[in-house]
Amino acid sequence: MKISLIPAVTYVNDDELKGKTAVVIDVLRATSVMTTAIINGASEIIALTEVEDALRMKDAKCILGGERKGLKIKGFDLSNSPLEYTRERVEGKRVVMTTTNGTKTLNKVEAADKIYIACMLNGKAVGKRLVEEEKDTVIVCAGTNGKFSIDDYACAGKIIYEANKFGKVELDDFAYAAFSAYNDHKDDIISLVKNAYHYKYLLSLGLGEDLKYCFKEDISDLVPEYKSGRIK
Amino acid sequence: MKISLIPAVTYVNDDELKGKTAVVIDVLRATSVMTTAIINGASEIIALTEVEDALRMKDAKCILGGERKGLKIKGFDLSNSPLEYTRERVEGKRVVMTTTNGTKTLNKVEAADKIYIACMLNGKAVGKRLVEEEKDTVIVCAGTNGKFSIDDYACAGKIIYEANKFGKVELDDFAYAAFSAYNDHKDDIISLVKNAYHYKYLLSLGLGEDLKYCFKEDISDLVPEYKSGRIK
Repeated sequence: MKISLIPAVTYVNDDELKGKTAVVIDVLRATSVMTTAIINGASEIIALTEVEDALRMKDAKCILGGERKGLKIKGFDLSNSPLEYTRERVEGKRVVMTTTNGTKTLNKVEAADKIYIACMLNGKAVGKRLVEEEKDTVIVCAGTNGKFSIDDYACAGKIIYEANKFGKVELDDFAYAAFSAYNDHKDDIISLVKNAYHYKYLLSLGLGEDLKYCFKEDISDLVPEYKSGRIK
Repeated sequence: MKISLIPAVTYVNDDELKGKTAVVIDVLRATSVMTTAIINGASEIIALTEVEDALRMKDAKCILGGERKGLKIKGFDLSNSPLEYTRERVEGKRVVMTTTNGTKTLNKVEAADKIYIACMLNGKAVGKRLVEEEKDTVIVCAGTNGKFSIDDYACAGKIIYEANKFGKVELDDFAYAAFSAYNDHKDDIISLVKNAYHYKYLLSLGLGEDLKYCFKEDISDLVPEYKSGRIK
């Protein structure tokens, strides 16, 4: 099976996705939030691109979460901090989310046969799943404001590294570069990602605890899947 | 000064280049050939995208060089092997070149204020020049058939590494990733680039000596410049 890597959502084109599995990564923080909400028992996540659409869905069984410019949206229940998506808050609930990069990326990869949600928290499980299914895969880094982001790249590297441990994978050059970057920094991944523009931006917002959490590796075996606007 | 990096020619857009310096890299092998020809005294290089246009320029004072699919073009004097561009062959001559990725990339970056030709052979000199001129810079990897190529990425990393030694540079995430990759592999750059699709392709054509030559570092202080279709 082949794994190719797309640097940022801007570079996605449908032809590259057709007949393949897509893996979407937005480590800081959309896919880390989504994975955390599913780990903590959310019944489903609805990913929307527009704030207005999310606000229209607000009701007692529904939690609204997300961000613009990294901050909580007016009228929403939760921000885009994964630490807020505790079992007490999300278990059995439907979560409606909109974020700047992550939810947009999900909409952009709908031409793929299957779409998985990945982050550091479930990186090994995603790598294993890809090898088990033996289907050609395109890993899509959401990036930050349409640009390549080192945090997503490091996570792509981890997934490829894990897949490569489970079975034989053929990598395109960009996937190999990410594998190599993760391999060179796997004992201290923060040494690589601390230079990311978005990492530094979130740190400047006082979100250091979020950053620590988002770079925890393999706390879950769950691999959330996105289908027709919903993640389960 | 800021340095940003573009993964492959496909991703170039004019707005990002305006008012800046562009550095074009096609290590395997166009910019290595161009730099070698200038080192060995070629009076100028004319970079063309079409074979027919090159053939029309053939005369006694002019040498035709380049490739399609890595191989010499029918009716041309030289292939795209830098080892053929010796002082005996090119000194005082005009070289007319067309290659699959490199010459096309030069045409695509013409919106920039200045365009430099870079490869491993002059990487330190390019890095130094950028810092001396203190102008925001976009490094453009030609890539292979429009896709990201590790060999160009490694060279971008080297130039950024050298620039960073000479002065203060601000890097976008992709430039930082390249810097980091070079920094992690600088004592054995082949350990990184041997996994590149294009490196392996050229090796399969029996071009191992070309590969060795193209990854020699800093054999020259010359920084060729491209202007109105000509390199000097």
